[in-house]
This record gives sequence, structure tokens and C-alpha cells, in this order.
Amino acid sequence: MSDFIASKEDDYSKWYLDIVQKAKLADYSPVKGCMVIMPYGYSIWSKIQSILDKKFKETGHENAYFPMLIPYSFLEREKDHIDGFSPEFAIIKDAGGESLAEPLVLRPTSETIIWNMYSKWIKSYRDLPLKINQWANVVRWEKRTRPFLRTTEFLWQEGHTAHATEEEALEETLLILDVYKRFIEDYLAIPVFCGKKSEKEKFAGAVSTYSIEALMQDKKALQAATSHYLGLNFAKAFDVKFQDKDGKMRHVFASSWGVSTRLIGALIMVHSDEKGLVLPPRIAPIEIIVIPIFKKEDEINKKILDYCDCVVDALKKAGFRVEIDKDVRSSPGFRFSSAEFKGIPIRLEVGINDVLLNSVTISRRDKDRKFKYQISLDSLVSKVKVELDLMQKDLFQRALNFRILNTKEIFRSSKDSYETFKAYVNDYSGFVLSCWCGSLNCENIIKNETKATIRCIPDDFKARDLTGMTCIYCSSKAKYFVLFAKSY
Amino acid sequence: MSDFIASKEDDYSKWYLDIVQKAKLADYSPVKGCMVIMPYGYSIWSKIQSILDKKFKETGHENAYFPMLIPYSFLEREKDHIDGFSPEFAIIKDAGGESLAEPLVLRPTSETIIWNMYSKWIKSYRDLPLKINQWANVVRWEKRTRPFLRTTEFLWQEGHTAHATEEEALEETLLILDVYKRFIEDYLAIPVFCGKKSEKEKFAGAVSTYSIEALMQDKKALQAATSHYLGLNFAKAFDVKFQDKDGKMRHVFASSWGVSTRLIGALIMVHSDEKGLVLPPRIAPIEIIVIPIFKKEDEINKKILDYCDCVVDALKKAGFRVEIDKDVRSSPGFRFSSAEFKGIPIRLEVGINDVLLNSVTISRRDKDRKFKYQISLDSLVSKVKVELDLMQKDLFQRALNFRILNTKEIFRSSKDSYETFKAYVNDYSGFVLSCWCGSLNCENIIKNETKATIRCIPDDFKARDLTGMTCIYCSSKAKYFVLFAKSY
Repeated sequence: MSDFIASKEDDYSKWYLDIVQKAKLADYSPVKGCMVIMPYGYSIWSKIQSILDKKFKETGHENAYFPMLIPYSFLEREKDHIDGFSPEFAIIKDAGGESLAEPLVLRPTSETIIWNMYSKWIKSYRDLPLKINQWANVVRWEKRTRPFLRTTEFLWQEGHTAHATEEEALEETLLILDVYKRFIEDYLAIPVFCGKKSEKEKFAGAVSTYSIEALMQDKKALQAATSHYLGLNFAKAFDVKFQDKDGKMRHVFASSWGVSTRLIGALIMVHSDEKGLVLPPRIAPIEIIVIPIFKKEDEINKKILDYCDCVVDALKKAGFRVEIDKDVRSSPGFRFSSAEFKGIPIRLEVGINDVLLNSVTISRRDKDRKFKYQISLDSLVSKVKVELDLMQKDLFQRALNFRILNTKEIFRSSKDSYETFKAYVNDYSGFVLSCWCGSLNCENIIKNETKATIRCIPDDFKARDLTGMTCIYCSSKAKYFVLFAKSY
Repeated sequence: MSDFIASKEDDYSKWYLDIVQKAKLADYSPVKGCMVIMPYGYSIWSKIQSILDKKFKETGHENAYFPMLIPYSFLEREKDHIDGFSPEFAIIKDAGGESLAEPLVLRPTSETIIWNMYSKWIKSYRDLPLKINQWANVVRWEKRTRPFLRTTEFLWQEGHTAHATEEEALEETLLILDVYKRFIEDYLAIPVFCGKKSEKEKFAGAVSTYSIEALMQDKKALQAATSHYLGLNFAKAFDVKFQDKDGKMRHVFASSWGVSTRLIGALIMVHSDEKGLVLPPRIAPIEIIVIPIFKKEDEINKKILDYCDCVVDALKKAGFRVEIDKDVRSSPGFRFSSAEFKGIPIRLEVGINDVLLNSVTISRRDKDRKFKYQISLDSLVSKVKVELDLMQKDLFQRALNFRILNTKEIFRSSKDSYETFKAYVNDYSGFVLSCWCGSLNCENIIKNETKATIRCIPDDFKARDLTGMTCIYCSSKAKYFVLFAKSY
């Protein structure tokens, strides 16, 4: 195989880009920072969409579509929002051969246009809650881009909900955080930490942001999803009030939340290897690839192909997503490599021997190529199911082990100091659980000196006792356990 | 019910807008010409998407996603293309706080950006055919807009295929035309004419355009779908060549095709009435609404609701899309009207009488409110199925009858002249089948004098003999039977 994937050790960043290209997930476009999502990459996104869309609907959300073009003045109405997003605006001043009276911005996120509509739609408590999701493209003019991880235009979903009470809006914010967590852990097989962001790191316009943080193989964290409690910020900016049951007019509480094509970047960087992509079965567009091992004799090959068709039919009938690569011009090795590039979880080889024995030879993408064994056609469906389930679990467990190994607790003590922390972050990276006083100053200094940021105040460590704990930087009384990491 | 829908006779245009608003399909946005597709409207679009997407995949197409931003110079490469689309461009010159080196255009259609990528992806005959579809938003700065029919931003799918031969590209163009025709007739219950466009009316950049034309209730035609044979126009503009089996380098033949949210406008204007939307069952997001008729006594109402739950469960289990409107605060009449606004095909009323008799009362959206009858719970599923199927057929037949009634043949003869044609188009509108010499001059004059355009050279009349037929305008030898109509 002439295609070459860089070594992770030598150049993780190049390895990542090689995977994107060799698995045909995306290609560079002539527009700086914009990628083309190629059919195979798009099919992964479609799977993500269909699973999440179902979960959103099960939790009472409906889809809608709002204009991509937002009047500049709308974005100015919420001060933090415009401050946060305006450096990345793409702006239209000319359209239809004329200058526009007011510039329009390509949506970087849709709170403003949506809350403008909500001011029209929400009049009474009967109109609440209003829970709408949108699948859309957004544009943020980023300086440094990388396919899936950070692109000028990207695809995402953004949920925007309106509630009568703060409690309900907060509940929604956390409900969705949990939907994301379960999706990312159960389908993408990526173990995650959930928690609140610091004030510095929260969404521009939110009261508080909750995020989902995953650890990549290079020990950098990646924010995989966010859910924001927006309080009354947008209701006030767009004057959205409802008449409550008691007849009084009240502002509406809000949440917003989203995941994007970035998840595909996470999939790559958590599971894949130097042979290509590795996809957890539950998210894989193709779960099983059948590869006939041809002989020289046409007659034998016909038998093999007929047999393969039976195998494929049986698997399709059982509901599996299966394909066959019967390109007679390519060697088995070449076709194995192709399937490996794509991260197809299960490979079934069929040689003449298998035809004679009524068997197939099964192997798994996450195992060594030498790991393979024959299974009889009778047990095909059940064995395939077992291996797919096992692989899903194994990938999660492997990623979890890696994260456990790379989550270090460093607290101020007679033994450890800020210097220990700094040295560790510098030498080993990964997540560091530590304590923080809550001051922006400490957060900034740590970031400047170590490049590590507070990823979140993790829910997982909420039960721990803070008594006597001190800030890793300034040694004053600690307010939170926090997770630090360098990040994407 | 306080909501009011204009009379079709008095003001068809107002009636249309009333339906859009009262059925909560879309709302006006603060950005001129852009609409918000509301949840119910979006759920219809989702149904359209899922059905067509399946058909595209069955015919060998894959989805991908290309950047929305297209360098201006790309659009200039195909002369007809830029001439046709540039008046409607929305242009970005500023982004990320800087002036761009080259202006970017929001895609009005994606031939240019896609064929730029194809020049990279297509090298050999082995890379062909390449058949990609994209679901996306596009922007065309239209002067006069109307929800769904013509909006500045709209949602659509655009297929872009590449082929080794002209025959294959033409075959694809017509295959998709047929996919569209069958979808629009079988699912949307809209009878259509298919045929080639005149040179004047074809897509800017196409060799030939084929369209699907439907007749609205106000006797104006609506172009519901188009499929273009692009020849080598874009392959030449972007230098896309492949090495053929004989080793020679050849340009690649192309097709492109699309349908948009405009289809929802067609649905409204073919089937709906003054009570609201009427949706063909196969495209209806909700096929059946169950409406309990409450009494004063809570105890009785509980019985009714329990019974309704059984009805809903039985229907869901049978695979129907069913909802219940148990809003006790609203009268049955109010809830009937709500369901009528939304065009839900089947209404099942459940009163205490039904509970006692083990029955429900069924009625159909396309029939008079008085048309209703009781069915026993035993035959619920089968009866509902029968009525849904019947309604689907009835709607199509009704629309077909209307079209037959409003498709007039007017040919030059001792009896009929261009004046007859003009008077008819003026007084009655509808489709007029006539003959045309093929000259742009006649086409232009007819358009200017009657506002009717050549909708297409219809396939349906291809078998007819043109011998002795003459152009309806200039009386020279006719080249084609053509369909004229005023149109949206």
C-alpha cells in the first residue's frame, strides 16, 4: 500500500491529518479554513445526527430552521455575546447588487435571531417551555483551523429552550449535558468528565456553561459538547416576557447547547491508530466488511462470491450494516488496508476453504491482524453480534484506562507545590485534578505559565471534602476541585 | 375560533400566507426575504428529506458537504453561470476583522465549488461515476419573496454527478427526473408534467434543463424540481479530466439536480382549503389525531382518556404517526379546527359513547366535517389504513381532475389563432398545450403579451404527430409541442 500514515509518536498532528485524508473523511477546500466533508466523513456525521436527533425528540424537543443571516444590531444587544463573537464575524454588506442598509453576520451561533423570534412566539405561560433544536452550518472566522477540530464553517446542532422558571432552565441545561454524556460514552465510546466551566471559560452570553471534556491520545483535552444556562440574558436583550399564571409579566429563562462535527475529531483522536481510523461499532457507518480471497480460477471465485452474497444477505437480514469489497483487481492485503483506513469494526474473510467448511474468518479492527478465527455460518449472526458488543466495550475501557493513567491528582501539601504541578503539566500533560481559589488572577497565571486551562469543575469529584484544601497557585482557601489540561 | 383564513376566491395570495401562518409552517424573520421554518413546517421538510434521501441512496448516491463560501473567481469561470446568478449574489468582503483578499459568495448553487473538488478527486475512469448529493442552505438575493415559494435563503438538496460519457450523464439526468416525478406524484399527490426547458428558461450553465411542472389551484404553474444535463461546461471550466480505459485523457460529463423547501409551497397550493392545510397521508408528519370529547365529570373523562390511550397505543404499534389532543381547556370544535389547520389526514373522535360501544368516530381532512362514521376498535387499524390510502389516492385524483380541466389545447387552425390563445391565457390561465417554432423571438413576444412562459416541452405529448402543425405565434413550421402557463 503506497499510502502512508505518519507515526503518532513522531508527529501527532500530521498523523491526525493523515487519518482524515486516508480515511477520506474530509478534504481541504480552496476557501481558507473550510473543509469539504467527504461521503465517508459525512456518513459518520449522519449517524451522529440520527442518534442525537432521536434523543432530542424523546426529551421533548422539535426541530426548526432559522435564518443564517443575522442583523449586526441583534448581536450587539447582549454585551458579552458581541464581545466574545465579533472578532470571528463574517460580514455581508453587499447583496443583490446593492449595499445593505444594515450589515448582516453569518450566524456564529443563533441565540440572537432565535430570541428575537421567541419575543413574538412567547406570550403566556402556556407557550412554555419552548424547546427547539436546529441542525445547521455556522461560521466563525478562526485564525488557526484544523479539519473537524476547528473550521471556519462547521456543521452542528444548537438547542435553544425557553422556560418559566430558573429551576426548569437549569434542569434542561443539565438534562442535555447528560444526554450528551451518555451519547458520547455509549456510542462514541469516549469516557468524559462533565462539569461547570469557570467564569473565564464560559460561553459569551451565558450565566454558566457546562461542558464535556474528553482526553485525546496526545493527552490534550477536547471540549466535546457544551450546555449553557443563559438565565435572563437573552430574554432581557430581546424583551421576551410571558404572562404567568398569576397574571404577572415575567422574563423567560433560557438554555442553549450544542455539539458539532468536532465530535468526529474526537473519535479520531481517542481510538485510531497508525493503520487508520478505528470506529466504535455503534457509530460506524459500516459495521462489517466482507472480503473474498480470490483464487486464479474464475469458477472457484464464482463460488466464493456466491457464498459471500449469502453471508452478506444473512447479516443484512439480521440488521447489520455490512458491505463487501469484491474488487478483484486489488490484493486481499490492499483491501484489508482499505477497510483498516476506514475503521470498519469487523472484517470477515471468505476463502475457498471457508466455502468448503461453511465458515468465515472473523477479525476485529481493534485487534492485531493476527487475531482472527473461523466461525461457522450457523453462528455467524450471534458471533458477529458478540464481537461488535465486545469491541464497543473494549474501546471504551481502553480509553478509560488511558484516561485514568493520565489523570493525576496534585494538591498543595508538604510534598507538592505549584512547582510540582507546573513540572508535571509540562512533562506529562493529561488531566490534573487540583484545587483552585476561584480567582481569575490565579487562573490566568496558571494558563500563561503552563498553557493548561481549567477544563471544568468536575461533577465526578463533587462529593470530595474541600476542608483544608488550598489553591494550587496562591495557597489561599480552595473553592473548587478543578480539572486542568492543555486543550484543543 | 378567532383565527381567520382569507377566501381563496377573494385573495389567493393572502389565503396562501394565512395557511403558512395558521398551520405554523413558517414565520417572517427580521431579515428581508428570509423565513423561519417553524417546527411543523420543518417536520414536513424532514419527511421530504428522509424519503428522497432513501431514493438517492437506492440509486447509488452518497451525501457530502461542501463549503457554503465560494470564491468569486470560481463563479466567473462558467460564463452563463455567472451571468445568470451574479445579480442575486450575497457577498462577503470582511471577515475575522479583516478585508478578504478575494470576495466570497454565499453559494447560490454549488456546481463551481464541487467541480473544483472533482478536479482533485477524478483522475481515472475508475473514479467514475461520482454521484454526490448535498443537503444544504443556499442564498439567492431575490427581489420579491414569499414563504417557501421564493426566499432569500432556502433549504434544498443538490445532486452533482460526474460521468465518463454523455449517454451516462444524460441517463442520470433523466433518472433523477423520474425519481422526482414519482416522489411528487406518489407522496405529495401532485400530478406533474415532465419535460425539457426551452433554451431561454434553462439553468445558467446547463446544456439542457428538464423540469417538473405542477398546476396550482389558482391555475398558475410551479416548477417543482429541475434536473440539468451540464455536458462538459463545468469540467472545462475547472479542467476536470480522467484517463479513460484506452489511456486517453477526456473531460468529464456532468449532471446536477435539486428540489427545495419550495415543495412545501406546492403542497399548500395544490391541496389546501379555507380550513387550513391539507396534507397527503404519505407526507403528513402526523397521520392521525385522536380527539377526546370531554364531559363535565372527571370520572367519565378519565375513562375516555384511558380508552384514548389504548387507541393511540394500538395505532402506534401498527406503525402509524399518531397524536392526541387532550387539551381539556379547549372545546372539541377548537381542537378540530387546530387539526384542520395542520392538515392532519385522519381525525378520530372519542366520546363516552365510543367508550361504551368499543368504537371511535373517524373522519377525513379532505371530506366535509359531516362525513364521519363509527368504526369498531377491532377494525381500527385496517379501517384507518384504508382511509389513509383512499385519501392519498383521492387527493391525487382531485388534483389530476383539476389539471385536466385546466389544460387546454390550442393550436393554429381555421378556428383558433394566436388571438384565441392570448384571450384564453388571459381569461382562464392554466396550462395551454400549443405548438412552437423554437424561436426565442416568438417565446419572448408571447411572454411579454400574455405573461405565460414555456414551462416545458412535455414528455407526455412526445408521441404526437407534428406534421402540418405551426407555431401559435408566427405560424411557421412547429418544432415542438409546448406547455405554456403563467407561473410562480
